[in-house]
Amino acid sequence: MQACGLIVEYNPFHNGHAYHIQESRKTSGADCIIAVMSGSFLQRGEPAIIDKFHRTKAALSAGVDVVLELPYLYAVQSSDLFAEGAVKTLYKAGVSTICFGSESGDISYFIHGYHALKNNQATYQTALHEQLDKGTSFPEASRLAYKQVGLTTDKMDLAKPNNILGFGYVKSIMDNELPIEPLTINRIKSNYHDQTITGSIASATSIREELLNSGELTKQAQSALPEETISQLLHYKQMANSWHSWEQYFGLVQYRVMTMSTGELAAIHGVDEGLEYRIKKYANNVTSFHEWMRAIKTKRYTWTRLQRVFAHILTNTAKAEMSQVKADPSVPYVRLLGMTKKGQEYLNSRKKQMDVPLITALNQTNDTMAQTEEKASSAYYSILPPRKRNEFRRQELQPPIMI
Amino acid sequence: MQACGLIVEYNPFHNGHAYHIQESRKTSGADCIIAVMSGSFLQRGEPAIIDKFHRTKAALSAGVDVVLELPYLYAVQSSDLFAEGAVKTLYKAGVSTICFGSESGDISYFIHGYHALKNNQATYQTALHEQLDKGTSFPEASRLAYKQVGLTTDKMDLAKPNNILGFGYVKSIMDNELPIEPLTINRIKSNYHDQTITGSIASATSIREELLNSGELTKQAQSALPEETISQLLHYKQMANSWHSWEQYFGLVQYRVMTMSTGELAAIHGVDEGLEYRIKKYANNVTSFHEWMRAIKTKRYTWTRLQRVFAHILTNTAKAEMSQVKADPSVPYVRLLGMTKKGQEYLNSRKKQMDVPLITALNQTNDTMAQTEEKASSAYYSILPPRKRNEFRRQELQPPIMI
Repeated sequence: MQACGLIVEYNPFHNGHAYHIQESRKTSGADCIIAVMSGSFLQRGEPAIIDKFHRTKAALSAGVDVVLELPYLYAVQSSDLFAEGAVKTLYKAGVSTICFGSESGDISYFIHGYHALKNNQATYQTALHEQLDKGTSFPEASRLAYKQVGLTTDKMDLAKPNNILGFGYVKSIMDNELPIEPLTINRIKSNYHDQTITGSIASATSIREELLNSGELTKQAQSALPEETISQLLHYKQMANSWHSWEQYFGLVQYRVMTMSTGELAAIHGVDEGLEYRIKKYANNVTSFHEWMRAIKTKRYTWTRLQRVFAHILTNTAKAEMSQVKADPSVPYVRLLGMTKKGQEYLNSRKKQMDVPLITALNQTNDTMAQTEEKASSAYYSILPPRKRNEFRRQELQPPIMI
Repeated sequence: MQACGLIVEYNPFHNGHAYHIQESRKTSGADCIIAVMSGSFLQRGEPAIIDKFHRTKAALSAGVDVVLELPYLYAVQSSDLFAEGAVKTLYKAGVSTICFGSESGDISYFIHGYHALKNNQATYQTALHEQLDKGTSFPEASRLAYKQVGLTTDKMDLAKPNNILGFGYVKSIMDNELPIEPLTINRIKSNYHDQTITGSIASATSIREELLNSGELTKQAQSALPEETISQLLHYKQMANSWHSWEQYFGLVQYRVMTMSTGELAAIHGVDEGLEYRIKKYANNVTSFHEWMRAIKTKRYTWTRLQRVFAHILTNTAKAEMSQVKADPSVPYVRLLGMTKKGQEYLNSRKKQMDVPLITALNQTNDTMAQTEEKASSAYYSILPPRKRNEFRRQELQPPIMI
């Protein structure tokens, strides 16, 4: 049986993702679709609106056969590490293709880009660091550096978030010489950052905004979401009494920062270049997470980067934890969140060839990465009432979801 | 001008304290009464019902002339260190007497006890550790050890909380050969631990229970409290919408423990002998602070000791912070919380002779002890709504309260 891998966050699972699954199945010709998904926190440093278990159910119902968890230490990272962790996880699971969405829908642009970059690595790096040293933000700096090596934006803008990620996947596959064929499908209609819901294929950002701002399932949001997502969103809200957003964590993260020394803050992953002083400086005067972010934000410290830093503070993710990952960038285990019958069949046929453990509950391994995952999960559920947060945390120890 | 020192927590200030002030003034013949008071957290490891500033106001209105803050690192400690910090603070403030309440009201028992203990130090220590090694609780172990050196309970039970503290004051004065005369007055009517309000002089514990259990000022509580305390309790509740008790911190401290490794937990002051595993073991299953405490408590880990440990976890007070205090057990500064006109006169006359800074706002020193104080204050106010907690924290930077 052949498997095709998708790399996703499903926050929430929406029509764009359903389209992605459908097209990936067609394009790859694979029998089994394996999604590797961020857990409690997402690549852009946000808490997921509903938890990983509810998102897993929605994904399985919409046609994914296996849902694997992308460990926190890979998920809440810049695109390079995110891509590295995701690709390696899918490789361990034995996929022969990985399919991602892009504006162009043409994989040759990515392959060409990879070689252009590889052959001009030094030029690219010099240009990138020149820009970063000037205080240019990472996306803008990389756009300018790409230009230096001939990768202009006329065919493909490599600085667009989805292209950055797609490029990361290709780079990861080719750098590691993995026997995986990268595929891309055309993303249609909406832009990643488009904040208005424009049709049945809406951007993830716009749906999130709509859900979190209104606090309910508006008609517009409903039109962009498949039935199964709607039912998971409603089920989660009924059980937890809210959807997760940064503002709900403001009290916890402010408490945390106010009881840390600057030295302790500097030991947190991502707190670099004196950022600890900037975070502390405003901690006592702000009354919301948004206000704090706005106070700290500069051209260099982008919103996304700062959100990731706050996620690391909230989850107490230390530089020491990350340096282990950097020292040994392999994937220590593959964690199964859910599967269909077909997914189970695939995994049964595949299991014996896997050289890392396939785990379901977090307590089936002593690996640091799983311990970080537990902390992230605990922090994630901390905003719920006592009984709920204990009950929800215990899901981490349950057998995988099956539909 | 002569000053007499009192060592107090004022949680809340009640008729027993008013009596203590009155009698101390009489017994010492001093013009100025200086109270050194615990701040956000108390010796037994509890958050103060209302904050230090409101308690300072109540104390000044009831006849205290100067209120000094006992730093957190001395306040939330076993009786020895609590006494050491309090006595040294009062010494820096220049008191010639220190007056404490006791069941006997006879200082000679304490002096006799001090010498008996000093002359039989080895016997006492051996007996104490024999008992502690058996798993006996500290109060019970010390009672048995005192017996070994001839200090039986017929004249004075040295294992009673108030006597333990009183004895600590005398020991601190005499060990350090301070030019301070210890005085004691008779505590009347109620026992320290008595949980029923029995008259106009009620125990601190019984009043706290009454206030926190009912959540309001019952008639019984009112009868045991002076008018000024009642008005401070009401004012605080009106502003903060609640009185502080451990249950309100349950979410924060559970979040904190769940995102710490056992190694990090073991670096917290008071987390010894594998207690980190015991705390973690139950963290995920309990739904209240009380339930957690009951699950962890053993004969050796007394309620009080565990509450102090949780206070250190909540405030992120590390063993490293404490080892500085142990290495240099001097008082690095004297912090003034409030004063009357007479108190101001006294301090003005005294200031030049002081060999440590007299500070009012916490940012007037860089000392570790003040940084710990800030963390404690931040943690203390963390349960209030955003605007309130910022506003209340800013009190730490205001001039002293004057009435």
